[in-house]
Order: sequence, then structure tokens, then C-alpha cells
Amino acid sequence: RIMRPDDANIAGNVHGGTILKMIEEAGAIISTRHCNSQAGEPCVAALARVERTDFLSPMCIGEVANVSAEITYTSRHSVEVQVNVMSENILTGAKKVTNKATLWYVPLSLKNVNKVLEVPPIQYARQEQEDEGKKRYEEQKLDRLETKQRNGDVILPVINPEPHTVGYSQSSLIHLVGPSDCTLLGFVHGGVTMKLMDEVAGIVAARHCKTNIVTASVDAINFHEKIKKGCVITVSGRMTFTSNKSMEIEVFVDADPFVDEPRERYRAVSAFFTYVSLSKEGKPLPVPQLLTETEDEKRRFEEGKGRYLQTKAKRQAQMQQAAQQ
Amino acid sequence: RIMRPDDANIAGNVHGGTILKMIEEAGAIISTRHCNSQAGEPCVAALARVERTDFLSPMCIGEVANVSAEITYTSRHSVEVQVNVMSENILTGAKKVTNKATLWYVPLSLKNVNKVLEVPPIQYARQEQEDEGKKRYEEQKLDRLETKQRNGDVILPVINPEPHTVGYSQSSLIHLVGPSDCTLLGFVHGGVTMKLMDEVAGIVAARHCKTNIVTASVDAINFHEKIKKGCVITVSGRMTFTSNKSMEIEVFVDADPFVDEPRERYRAVSAFFTYVSLSKEGKPLPVPQLLTETEDEKRRFEEGKGRYLQTKAKRQAQMQQAAQQ
Amino acid sequence: RIMRPDDANIAGNVHGGTILKMIEEAGAIISTRHCNSQAGEPCVAALARVERTDFLSPMCIGEVANVSAEITYTSRHSVEVQVNVMSENILTGAKKVTNKATLWYVPLSLKNVNKVLEVPPIQYARQEQEDEGKKRYEEQKLDRLETKQRNGDVILPVINPEPHTVGYSQSSLIHLVGPSDCTLLGFVHGGVTMKLMDEVAGIVAARHCKTNIVTASVDAINFHEKIKKGCVITVSGRMTFTSNKSMEIEVFVDADPFVDEPRERYRAVSAFFTYVSLSKEGKPLPVPQLLTETEDEKRRFEEGKGRYLQTKAKRQAQMQQAAQQ
Repeated sequence: RIMRPDDANIAGNVHGGTILKMIEEAGAIISTRHCNSQAGEPCVAALARVERTDFLSPMCIGEVANVSAEITYTSRHSVEVQVNVMSENILTGAKKVTNKATLWYVPLSLKNVNKVLEVPPIQYARQEQEDEGKKRYEEQKLDRLETKQRNGDVILPVINPEPHTVGYSQSSLIHLVGPSDCTLLGFVHGGVTMKLMDEVAGIVAARHCKTNIVTASVDAINFHEKIKKGCVITVSGRMTFTSNKSMEIEVFVDADPFVDEPRERYRAVSAFFTYVSLSKEGKPLPVPQLLTETEDEKRRFEEGKGRYLQTKAKRQAQMQQAAQQ
Repeated sequence: RIMRPDDANIAGNVHGGTILKMIEEAGAIISTRHCNSQAGEPCVAALARVERTDFLSPMCIGEVANVSAEITYTSRHSVEVQVNVMSENILTGAKKVTNKATLWYVPLSLKNVNKVLEVPPIQYARQEQEDEGKKRYEEQKLDRLETKQRNGDVILPVINPEPHTVGYSQSSLIHLVGPSDCTLLGFVHGGVTMKLMDEVAGIVAARHCKTNIVTASVDAINFHEKIKKGCVITVSGRMTFTSNKSMEIEVFVDADPFVDEPRERYRAVSAFFTYVSLSKEGKPLPVPQLLTETEDEKRRFEEGKGRYLQTKAKRQAQMQQAAQQ
Repeated sequence: RIMRPDDANIAGNVHGGTILKMIEEAGAIISTRHCNSQAGEPCVAALARVERTDFLSPMCIGEVANVSAEITYTSRHSVEVQVNVMSENILTGAKKVTNKATLWYVPLSLKNVNKVLEVPPIQYARQEQEDEGKKRYEEQKLDRLETKQRNGDVILPVINPEPHTVGYSQSSLIHLVGPSDCTLLGFVHGGVTMKLMDEVAGIVAARHCKTNIVTASVDAINFHEKIKKGCVITVSGRMTFTSNKSMEIEVFVDADPFVDEPRERYRAVSAFFTYVSLSKEGKPLPVPQLLTETEDEKRRFEEGKGRYLQTKAKRQAQMQQAAQQ
């Protein structure tokens, strides 16, 4: 679809959240279709996880987003979908890869939302495709367990914070889940949640550096718990790390089923977003260093640095590999 | 209502699809109100057909759209509504007719969506009004049958197409039908469908000529089948004909009831949109000639030429008639 | 227009904020049109104030909102508009007055947004209409000055609040102002702001009483300062008073022009919203008493009680007057 003014920031760059939402919609459609392809209980595919994705080039207002999706692996109860997004300037015909994302879905019964159904297996062209898929499946399963443990953390408010401290830029928004946010099962679309997360992360980044910012990448996002229609969700973000030209923001999503439900508030999703600041000519700008004050902030900074260095090393290895081929 | 940036293309012209959506909402309100004006089973009026409509002058961001609707004919099971749209520049006070449209609605029972109810007859000021309405009613009925037969056609993807061929500009989008897209009966509003059709047709036109384009007219649209909440709809468009300064695009809407429904994908709507390309001063620009390759493409081009010449002749006859009066 | 699922809460009642937004759009159109009716500098009418309004009966999904607006007074630099909203059930034909609102607009030059232009005078049918209008004009002018002084207040976060305290239900959201939120002058529509305010107030009310709630009335809202495109706005709400069956919530809107602007965060709007809790049959339910802890909270509670008793007395006086006529 064509990118509209509301999809973009004031500099005309489309929000990463809008792109994530499109990706998730494509993934949900293809995996729901696949899971209903054999006779049996009707089901809806629910997003369980999005693998780390990089935003390779910005998309602008007036460009057309081409989204394509393909099922690349199926386990007994989950589907792996690969989604590619291309931006196309329909006036010049120029096309660019915007990002590639890998999503995991789980089929839930339309009659009983707590029942996970079986996934019809796909055919692989070669045995090694299946083996590689299985490896990815095991890896993501492990990672989901790990992040679940990190989830107790809460963002506390800070009174009169100093510029460039963590408290200075931390932000949160609340959103009442409406019918348009939800699937047929009455649960929030993963894409809607990711759009809100990107919105908060973007505000944190802009508050910190006071310049035009864009989403550079999103770390793996795990959807631990479903969020039901009528909930209020609180999306909170705080900066965890800055390199010379990038900012890492941790985002939490908490759901509050406060009407007609006996449950307490719970953590539904958490993730790390990386932002860069761009000049008017689209060049990356230096960002102010994050000032850490408490022990926790210093620890999170070091952890963020670890992720940053790891990603950098991985990217360099990939580039060397590509150069050798 | 006031036209917003999201209602318009990058040149500030409001999308034809936004206008079609407003027209349909007005038509749905007046005909639902009329069909419920006598005691009896409550019903909702469903759009069955929109007659050909010309976009007489472009509407811009910041202008106010005034939409007025009137019932002009009733048959036993259908209502004809005439809708007029005026654009008003509230700064200068200038008003212009944007377009006039004729829509046909059918009352469906709120309890049983497959039951068509009877329409309360309206009073005509003169007998000839009723006779003319009856003639229009018979004509559209005939035309609906004809288009139903053309509906088997499918748009296949083309790899590495040459510029200005049919394959080069053809486009499609998918949309998951959400609650806000639907009427009280749980079926997609005709206006929502038309807006998506205009979006795809606009992308096809812009891909072909690489300049700013606007909707010039929409041929009669028939709504053969209802589309239910939860369906995925695929809207596809391909260019069928170019004159010196206009492009005709055929648009198909297919519905995929892939959850909870045993049905196959089906063709719900099809229509022809005509676009023109405008310079920055609002003057029509020449458009590149469409290159037809296959026999089918050549046949469709000739059919499009037929429609084009017929419309041109009709318009000239009307202008002569107007000049003589 | 027809009310959609997205306009309503889970019980099907249309949000007060949606209605306020429609009212403001109608007011902005009629007053911009009027202020441009004489030759002179083109201008856009900006919302300065909304008088207290009661929501007389709830509107539901599927109903049609009929909004009508009339200019009732003009001073040299401002326009008073009376807007009436009727809900119409197009299935049964039943119509009900939903609310009546009075809005004040000020014409700002399209070329220089800080320049207030002169308003063309309207003709009054009787001299007393002008006199009464002038009285209303003077009253609102005085009230605007008073609320401006109350504006220094800030909502501070509370850690681990007890149920039914002020800190327990207080809420805030942030919103990045996009192009569709803005007028031709690049400032946020008053209606957009009011919709966000109602959203926050509704969440505060629901968090307090954990049942289905609806907007009962909105006290006068003054728009002290314009909010520009690209700002982040923080909308915060806290409960100030509860009677047996109603809750009063104070809402603040702060604007943060953090990109490309040297300005500090500033208070743009503040207002009081009153909510009631409804049972499934639409009957008002008792609400839990608000627990006040600090001196400020106790003072605000007493002030809220004052407003509550004053409104009650005024309503009784009106009913007696009506009974006598």
C-alpha cells in the first residue's frame, strides 16, 4: 500500500512501527491460511515471536510498500514465516529492500482460545532446509525461555531528571484496546503492539537527542501472553545504551484487564529497539552519551554494550563472508 | 467533513476512493432509514451497484465535502439513491460540484442476512419520474447480469516485465477485514471496498506513467457477493487501455473466507477506473501508450477503446443537447 | 456519520471523546466559513473554549450522528457557535438529543498565525439576543483568566498506591502529533485534543471503579495555547471527587515541542470530566468513594464537591423553571 503522511515522522520517514505492523499482518494471513488448509478445527494463527530485524533503508511518504511472505518451516505446533518488504518509488521505479523479518506463529482454536492445534507439515525441497529450520526453531525456543525470566523489571518514574539521564527520556503511554486492534479471537494483533512499542521507543529516542530519529533495528520480540479486547495496555520505554551514533531502548508492554476480569496487571511483551539520529541529508548524527546513575542503569548499559558489540561482530563476519564469495 | 492530509495524494488532491466512501456512507444511511420507515422486519441496506460516475473537479486538503443524498426510485426489492458531492473552500467560499453518483441498495433482514425484504414505495411528483426510474432499473439489472459472466478472469504475475506493458504496472494488495470495515450485519461496507479499489487502481496508473495522477471516472461497479468479517480480500488491478490522456484500469476484488468457512475464494466485485495524469498546474498530461502483448491484452485494449469512444460520444451528445437548450 | 465499533467501548456506548471531536469539527467549519465571508485576509478559526456540556443520552454503535451548528454571537475577535448532536437509530427511526455544546472560536490569519483577525458581525433577530450573547461572552472571558492561574499544577507519579486512592487510578498517555491531527495552520484540532482527554479520563474512571463507564459531562475547557505539528503531548488525568454515583476527573494536556524548537514544555489545556458507571441494563451504579491522602487531594475533593453541588442546584432550578412554564 501507499505510505501516507500519518505513517511518517515530520521528516517524511515512515515509522518502523508501521512497517512492523504490515509485516505482521502478512505473516498472520499466510500462517492462518496454512493452518486451516487441512480439514479440522478452524484456527487463527497468533504471533509468538519476531526475530531480530534490521531496517536497511528508510521508506518515505508516497512510496509503495511491497510485502511478500513465505512459510519456511513448520514444527508440530508452530509456523515460521519469512517476510520481505521492498519500498518502491512508483514515480522513478526505484526499488529497495527495506527489511526482512522472520516471525513465528502458533495456531489457536477458534472455539477454544487456550487450545493450540497441530500445524500441517510443509514439504521441503531439500533435507537440509528442514534441518536448518529445526535448528532455528530450537534456538528461538531457548531464547523465549530466557527473556521470560528477565521480565520482572518495572520502569519507575523519576522526578526532575537531568538531561541525558535515563529518567529524562523515559516515557510511557496507555492505550485502551479497541475492536480494530484485535483478531477474530478478540486478542490484540501482534502488529498493533509492535507499532505502539515503536512509537514509545521513538519518543524516548527523540527526547534524548532532540533531533530527527529513525528505527535502525529491533531485537527479537517475544509475545509471552495474549492481550484481550477491553484491556488497557501500558507501553513504557527507557534508554539502556548509547554508542557514538545509536541508541538502544528497552520497551515493556503491560496489560491491565481491569474490567470484568479478576486478573492482576501482567507483562505481555518486552523488546529492545535501536534508533539512529539522521541529519536533513539523511546522514547519521552523533548522539549524546547516556548518563547512567544507579547500579542497575550501569549494568543495563554494559549489557546493551554487549549486544551492540555482538551485533557489530556478526555483521562484520557476514560482510567478510560475502566478500569472499 | 474537512479533508485531511491522509485523504490525499502527495500533490494534495483527495483520493477518489475517499470520495466514493463518503458517497456510499450517505447512500447507506438514507436507504436504510427509508427501508425501515414502515413497521416490519428491521433491515440494513446493502450496496448492490454504483452507476458510472465522473470526478468533475478535484477536491483538496482543507476543503469541506458537502454530501447530499436523495431517494429517486424504488422497485420492489431495491432503492435508487442519487448522491451529490460539493467541495467547498471555506476560506474563499468557492463551491464546486465534485461528482454525482447513483447507487442501488437492497434491504437485507437484520435477523437473516440472506433474506431480501420489500422496499416501501416512494411517491413521485410526476408519472414520468417513475417511468424513467423504471427504465434505469431495468438497464442496471441487465448490466449486472452481463458483468457477472466476465468474472472468471485472474491476474497472473509477470516476471521482469518491460516498461509500459500490462505486466509492468499490474498491482495487488491484501487486506484483512476488521470490525470497522463492516456494517451491523458483519459485512464489508461497499465504500470500504471502493476505497481499496481506488488505491490499487491509483498505484497501477502511477506505475505506468510515473507522474501525479487523479481518478477521472469510475465505471459502474457491481457488488455480486457480500464479503464477511474475518475474510482476507485481495484487490488486483491491471491496465486495459490508454488514450492520449487517460488510462483505464480494471480492478478485481476476491474474497478468501479462510477461517471457519468451507468456501473457496470468490470474486466479489469488479470495475473499471479511469485516471488522468496532471501537471503541477493541474493540466492533463499525455500518458505513455500501453504496450499489449498477448491476444487477451489486445482484446481488452479494444474493448476499453470501445468504452472510451462510447463515453466520449455520449458526453458530446450531452454537450450538444445542453448547447441547444 | 454511522458510529463504528472503534468509536465505542466494549459495552457498545460511543466514547464521549468521539462526540466532542465531531462537535468541534462542525464548529470549526461553520466559524471558519463565517470569518472568511467578507473580503480580507484568509483565516482559520481556532478553538478557544468549549462551554460545559452534558451527555444527555448514550449513543450506540450503528446509530447515525446528526450534527448541526449555528453561529449565535460574534464579538470583535471571537465567534460563539451552538452545536447540537442528535443520535438517530435508522432501523427504528428513533431520535434523541445526545448533547448541546457551545464553542468559542478565534480567527487566526493564514499568513501569520499569531495575528488575530476581526470577525464579521452577525445580524440578531432581536436586541436581547445580542445582549445575552454579550453576557455569555463576558462570563467566559472571566472564566478563562481564572483557569489560566490554576495551570501550574503537575501530576506526580505514586509508587505502589492503595486501591481507590488518587494515585491508584491516575493515568497519562503520550501522543506524537501527526499531520492528520492538524488544521491548515499546522496546529492540533481542538477536537483531537478533547478525544485524547476523554480517553485518559475514561481510563482513570475505569481503573477506579472497574466497571463499564460513560462520559456524563464535561466542564468548560479552555485552550490556552496552540499545539504544533511534531510536538509530543502528554495527557494526564487524576480523580478529584466522587459522589455516590459519579466521578470527577481533572485532565491536563502538556505540549513538548522537543524537535527544532527552543521552547520548554507548557500546559496547553486543562478540564474536568464527569463519568458515571453503568450496569448492563444501563442503570447508574454506585461508585467506590475516592480516598484522599494529602492536603492537596482533600482540597481538590472539596472543590470538586463544590462544583458538583453547584451543578446539581443549577439543574434543579432549571427543572423547576421548566415545570413552571
